[in-house]
Amino acid sequence: MSAGDVRIGQPAATLETPALVIDVDALERNIAQMAAYARKHRLRLRPHAKTHKCSAIAKLQADAGAVGVCVQKVSEAEALVAAGVPDIFITNEVVDPVKLRRVAELAGRVRLGIAVDSGLGVLGLANALRDVGTMVDVFVEIDVGQGRCGIAPVAAGALAHQVVSNGLRLAGLQAYHGRAQHLRAPAEREAAIHHAVRVARAAQASISAAGLVCPLVTGAGTGTFIHEAESGLYGELQAGSYVFMDRDYADNEPASTSPRFEHALFVKAQVMSRGVAHAVIDAGHKSHALDSGPPRVWQRHLDYQNGGDEHGILRIRAGAPAESLPDLGAAVWLVPGHCDPTVNLHDRYVVVRGGLDDGVVEAVWPIEARGCVQ
Amino acid sequence: MSAGDVRIGQPAATLETPALVIDVDALERNIAQMAAYARKHRLRLRPHAKTHKCSAIAKLQADAGAVGVCVQKVSEAEALVAAGVPDIFITNEVVDPVKLRRVAELAGRVRLGIAVDSGLGVLGLANALRDVGTMVDVFVEIDVGQGRCGIAPVAAGALAHQVVSNGLRLAGLQAYHGRAQHLRAPAEREAAIHHAVRVARAAQASISAAGLVCPLVTGAGTGTFIHEAESGLYGELQAGSYVFMDRDYADNEPASTSPRFEHALFVKAQVMSRGVAHAVIDAGHKSHALDSGPPRVWQRHLDYQNGGDEHGILRIRAGAPAESLPDLGAAVWLVPGHCDPTVNLHDRYVVVRGGLDDGVVEAVWPIEARGCVQ
Repeated sequence: MSAGDVRIGQPAATLETPALVIDVDALERNIAQMAAYARKHRLRLRPHAKTHKCSAIAKLQADAGAVGVCVQKVSEAEALVAAGVPDIFITNEVVDPVKLRRVAELAGRVRLGIAVDSGLGVLGLANALRDVGTMVDVFVEIDVGQGRCGIAPVAAGALAHQVVSNGLRLAGLQAYHGRAQHLRAPAEREAAIHHAVRVARAAQASISAAGLVCPLVTGAGTGTFIHEAESGLYGELQAGSYVFMDRDYADNEPASTSPRFEHALFVKAQVMSRGVAHAVIDAGHKSHALDSGPPRVWQRHLDYQNGGDEHGILRIRAGAPAESLPDLGAAVWLVPGHCDPTVNLHDRYVVVRGGLDDGVVEAVWPIEARGCVQ
Repeated sequence: MSAGDVRIGQPAATLETPALVIDVDALERNIAQMAAYARKHRLRLRPHAKTHKCSAIAKLQADAGAVGVCVQKVSEAEALVAAGVPDIFITNEVVDPVKLRRVAELAGRVRLGIAVDSGLGVLGLANALRDVGTMVDVFVEIDVGQGRCGIAPVAAGALAHQVVSNGLRLAGLQAYHGRAQHLRAPAEREAAIHHAVRVARAAQASISAAGLVCPLVTGAGTGTFIHEAESGLYGELQAGSYVFMDRDYADNEPASTSPRFEHALFVKAQVMSRGVAHAVIDAGHKSHALDSGPPRVWQRHLDYQNGGDEHGILRIRAGAPAESLPDLGAAVWLVPGHCDPTVNLHDRYVVVRGGLDDGVVEAVWPIEARGCVQ
């Protein structure tokens, strides 16, 4: 529950704080940029909705050409399906029989994909689909350098064979390299994805050797998608954070060939206590996630210091004038360090057009999959 | 929204994951311990509900003798009042006129307190209360060492005078030392609170010199409350985390005179991918907060490594046998690093009696103030 009323047409300057605000002009440009990039490279775009968890944004992405969205959890898929999203890929493993039953039921309502990385997962999925009488797209996940989920490439053929021999539809390889996204130097990210491509080619070869066809290699994120796109191997991009561009992604040194994205997600906060050399705002880590570092204070010479669950402490950046410290009651806009878990703290977006300080509220979008961890 | 059905009487072993679970036997013992401690020291106990955000737990605390609860935000107070909590202290500053209007309206429904640390805050509060025709308990917040909100002790008299001259009820001093709570050594925590007590005495003297009476000094947290209790100055304890005891508080070296609290809050997770030397569980930092470090894996020889929003990576602790690594599908219980922001990620508690592995679901408690940051 978020308290405080928001009216359509209300000036953003009068919004109660803390509020999760979208600069919709920037959002639309980001969505258009990525769609144009995918079109130009003749690639499918399936943005990751774990970033935004919101059917309104999924629809904007689909209208711009996206084939569907990705999610991480079954309950995220359920929430977005209930809100009208028609094509979803759960880029993650599910082994629990109760959850697999939910997957099978959901597959009766929309086009659904899911990842597998174990024989147990394949068997459970096959049982659930058989019981319910539905079908999903099955992607074999390979570990392309993340060291988390996914099998070794040499094992891909055997698992793909298990998929097919259990009557399931082999849709391709899930080949996402999460850790590569935030390597700061372009050359490091490029090297990591070159490695991922080699691994994915080996997995393809293993699937071919098993006498099967791998229809698609899918993966990529906002930090690396240009390298997957240029590989000639990946057929689908899963980048998600580009819609919002958080502080952590903006801290990456950009590659020369990359489209540029703008910050489109902000937390509006207010100074509610003021010292001589510091100001305290009403937004702490219950308003924005700190897992990827602190938020950036937008267009001010201020550094943000963690002040606990409900407070942020602002100090003047070295060399900036003393009047940079905002007064009691002043509004301050934060660029979250990490957009995905920040969004997950809020029930809705306040959608502002015309800029943060001068704009007005155009819409309020519910974050339907907020809190959907199951 | 949390998906997955939970039935009363369901074995905890069959709960869908990730789930936020209370070991209610441990919770009850923690509540009884703290209540007994406050009674023995003839102190008021007003536990901080920013920890649990839940009227059912507030009621258990009140039944054990608590005079009411604390919260940090107006919307938290609104949510708990709507759920029947009758006495709330907002231990935080509010300067926005719209929010102050909400404070004044809420004060017409329950006994309400609030903190101030500025003349602007006092004036705004007085205006709102005059408009609505209600009254609140006003606490002057002093900075006792945290370096966040609160005024210097020498300024307490002048601000208290402003409170009274604006027709408001001066209820006392808010004197909470947040940073002291997690100093690891008992002597460090004791020294920090000795400093806080000196500051609070100076503030009391300033209020006396202004010709006013300070009825109460309130503050303290789970890490330090024995020192505030032994000070002879504090009349009310605000500790909150003792109900759950997270990993970070348990990492404090305990003082010899402190009651011992048990872990009562857990995240149940499941192994959904398994490597040779690591297991991946379905709970990442969208299921539990990382701001105070990683969760502890409960009663297993495993270390938790951050695997992103929706994954945790488990590895065998050095020296433990290889069979310590759980199998695919196994349940794992996590003790969150920090309970407050972990709770804020979930819509409900699953309340289990009889232990985590063998117990059954006794209740499901809504977390009414989840997400209430305004």
